Amino acid sequence: MEKPTLPSGTRDFGPDVMAKRRFILNTISTVFQAFGFQPLETPAMENLSTLTGKYGEEGEQLLFKILNTGDFLKEIDKSNLAEINAKKLTPVIAEKGLRYDLTVPFARFVVMNRNEITFPFRRYQIQPVWRADRPQKGRYREFYQCDADVIGTRSLICEAEIILMIKSVFSKLGISDYTIKINHRGVLSGIAEAIDARTNETALFVAIDKLDKIGEDGVKKELLSKGFDEKSLTSLFEILNIKGSTAEKLTTLEAKLASGEAGKKGIEDLSTVLSLLGSYGSDEEHVEFDIALARGLSYYTGCIFEVKIHNVSIGSVGGGGRYDNLTKAFGDKENLPGVGFSFGVDRIYDAMEALQLFPKDAATSSKVLVCHFDDESFRYGLGLLAKLRSEGIACEIYPDVTKLKKQLDFANKKRIPYTIVVGSDEMQSGMLAFKDMGKGEQEKLDIAGIIGRLK
Amino acid sequence: MEKPTLPSGTRDFGPDVMAKRRFILNTISTVFQAFGFQPLETPAMENLSTLTGKYGEEGEQLLFKILNTGDFLKEIDKSNLAEINAKKLTPVIAEKGLRYDLTVPFARFVVMNRNEITFPFRRYQIQPVWRADRPQKGRYREFYQCDADVIGTRSLICEAEIILMIKSVFSKLGISDYTIKINHRGVLSGIAEAIDARTNETALFVAIDKLDKIGEDGVKKELLSKGFDEKSLTSLFEILNIKGSTAEKLTTLEAKLASGEAGKKGIEDLSTVLSLLGSYGSDEEHVEFDIALARGLSYYTGCIFEVKIHNVSIGSVGGGGRYDNLTKAFGDKENLPGVGFSFGVDRIYDAMEALQLFPKDAATSSKVLVCHFDDESFRYGLGLLAKLRSEGIACEIYPDVTKLKKQLDFANKKRIPYTIVVGSDEMQSGMLAFKDMGKGEQEKLDIAGIIGRLK
Repeated sequence: MEKPTLPSGTRDFGPDVMAKRRFILNTISTVFQAFGFQPLETPAMENLSTLTGKYGEEGEQLLFKILNTGDFLKEIDKSNLAEINAKKLTPVIAEKGLRYDLTVPFARFVVMNRNEITFPFRRYQIQPVWRADRPQKGRYREFYQCDADVIGTRSLICEAEIILMIKSVFSKLGISDYTIKINHRGVLSGIAEAIDARTNETALFVAIDKLDKIGEDGVKKELLSKGFDEKSLTSLFEILNIKGSTAEKLTTLEAKLASGEAGKKGIEDLSTVLSLLGSYGSDEEHVEFDIALARGLSYYTGCIFEVKIHNVSIGSVGGGGRYDNLTKAFGDKENLPGVGFSFGVDRIYDAMEALQLFPKDAATSSKVLVCHFDDESFRYGLGLLAKLRSEGIACEIYPDVTKLKKQLDFANKKRIPYTIVVGSDEMQSGMLAFKDMGKGEQEKLDIAGIIGRLK
Repeated sequence: MEKPTLPSGTRDFGPDVMAKRRFILNTISTVFQAFGFQPLETPAMENLSTLTGKYGEEGEQLLFKILNTGDFLKEIDKSNLAEINAKKLTPVIAEKGLRYDLTVPFARFVVMNRNEITFPFRRYQIQPVWRADRPQKGRYREFYQCDADVIGTRSLICEAEIILMIKSVFSKLGISDYTIKINHRGVLSGIAEAIDARTNETALFVAIDKLDKIGEDGVKKELLSKGFDEKSLTSLFEILNIKGSTAEKLTTLEAKLASGEAGKKGIEDLSTVLSLLGSYGSDEEHVEFDIALARGLSYYTGCIFEVKIHNVSIGSVGGGGRYDNLTKAFGDKENLPGVGFSFGVDRIYDAMEALQLFPKDAATSSKVLVCHFDDESFRYGLGLLAKLRSEGIACEIYPDVTKLKKQLDFANKKRIPYTIVVGSDEMQSGMLAFKDMGKGEQEKLDIAGIIGRLK
């Protein structure tokens, strides 16, 4: 029989990786909860009617679909099967698909439970999603998303709190060199208006979003090919090249976008968010107003965010923004304003690994291994385990009577940091040989003393 | 547009349910970790070659299969399609399936990572599984399993520790009225031998496993129809009706099964497990030797376990046992002995709900809502949030300037237990109106005093 394999683009998380992943996930959920967000979980499977029409044609092709159970061909006119292709057959034989993101299931939840929800509703959701993307370094077919959204208020403290949450998460993770880029949909519309490109907004935003990657010349080339003239491009880069602190950039830009409503609103919102940060006792540190930032624009309507960790070649590790029509796709008539942010756990993991930021003790192994020489000391050891565990200290005993060396090797391989060796002297006196495996130091302590040392 | 729905047999877990589920899941994982188990997570999708041939024909029909992406009909000779049925087509158009349990993915992990794993290996795994079962009360198509297994030792302390873990989990959950039923595959074989039914073991075990449900008469009727004679049935029920404490039952049974090796081994193992419990300072409380207990027998080879909570009409809330051939299905030649236990979280949840055992404060909402009257007190409130959060106290502010009554209603609806009201007097003096929403009591405290109260 062949050795089993994993489906491509998927991963097992063994104990060491799990310990590090949990450190990240627990940090994020602790911060989300401190900011009043409440947990939600939705099923892995959704009806395809819920998922389709939400992610564009490209996204739709990446949906994993689940074959109907039972005789799924029963209702099909088989005489036509020779004519049929995969695209036509799929909706007939698959009614369900795997979750592609956490936003659409959340919107479905809000529409289904509208009357029971107290708005404004702050929910967070940490679950895997699945995409049939071509697997490559850093891109998986199953990966976790960590989303926090507030639904039902236009208050800009939500935007300010997104910045505070990012700062708090990164501070707890030990990530200190990073930038939170912010921009506003209104600023982008204002620029389009100022350079007379309102009829060609999408091409403009798609192009300037690539500024980081293809540079000024690349963007110009792309826009010229889309019919933009040299004059608009000159005006465009006068704006994109505004320098200074966030406050300075806002002031300069305000003059340039003075004539349009959208641009004015964008600058006003961004200024308010910065001023609110001050009321929380925080400031602009790590925050950069990036006039060229343009995320999935068909979706966002207000502030937009993106986070980048420096000194690692990893894309953005999180993003989000304000949107106004979350539930409209489900036929909801009432406009529910919302704003949200999503952390990319897998990329944060890779960045922390590259920057060696994981704490050394982020392991989940036992803290103590009890070692023994014979059946009597083995039995004595079981009583020690009970005492350690009742104090919440994770511990285990080598389960078979065997040579001490084998037991200590086991502790080393599993990186169990402490051992207790029980022999006949130890049983008689109650003074146990307690060893720090890292330092190689040993001392004689009774069990109460050992518990004191470990707590 | 129609209101969206959930796929049948699946559920959303909103904030209240999540809080209770987490209380259960965190308790179980804390106990698993205290006993030295390390976490593992495997992907939701497995290759169908990993899943098939492991669950029997009935189980196999319950696998959810994932449609291959892209043009999955490309390789198919379409002239034959009119002849094809779902059973024949499935393996051609679906290469992956959703995890059906946590045992087979674990076995796959062990086979794939054999050289990196330090044995004995204690792993736990808490993840959802999917089964295309007919949905009904208490049976879902997506549900969580919580498994702990030790691989690579025959030591009976593993069995004793399973009992200790169940006791510890239930004690922490506040469940006090329950039974851990234990039996041994060897005892069952010994009984078959003693009543001369070795050639018909399966029919015998299937029948006596139903004793609880169909009673003595039902079991007799079933066995008579399978060709058992009255004499064997008399001997059988002499054994099944042995009364007394576990120790007494073992002594009586020992005499009756004296002639066979399997029975003797079974009794010896069970006696050792009970004696080991004593060495841990624990005892037989909650443990019942149930001679008729016979779980999935083709799989288990030693001790078997099942847990029932009393005073609720809910089936077993957990089960497990010793097995010897976990990795054999993957062509592994070396026999890896193992033993494991699985908690049924959904049923434990239902039982705790029915018995009203959830602590009232098992909520995940904010602890404090900051209320205000105008923009100035709103801004002042933001500073209070920062102080509370820096002390790890979950809190939020009503995000819009609005009437106080609306803010207090919001706190009540969300069951936020405390409010701080900030007015002009409060800002001037720093003495804030701190209200316990449950008791309706209000006092004036500064922010340090409030933090002291809440920690």
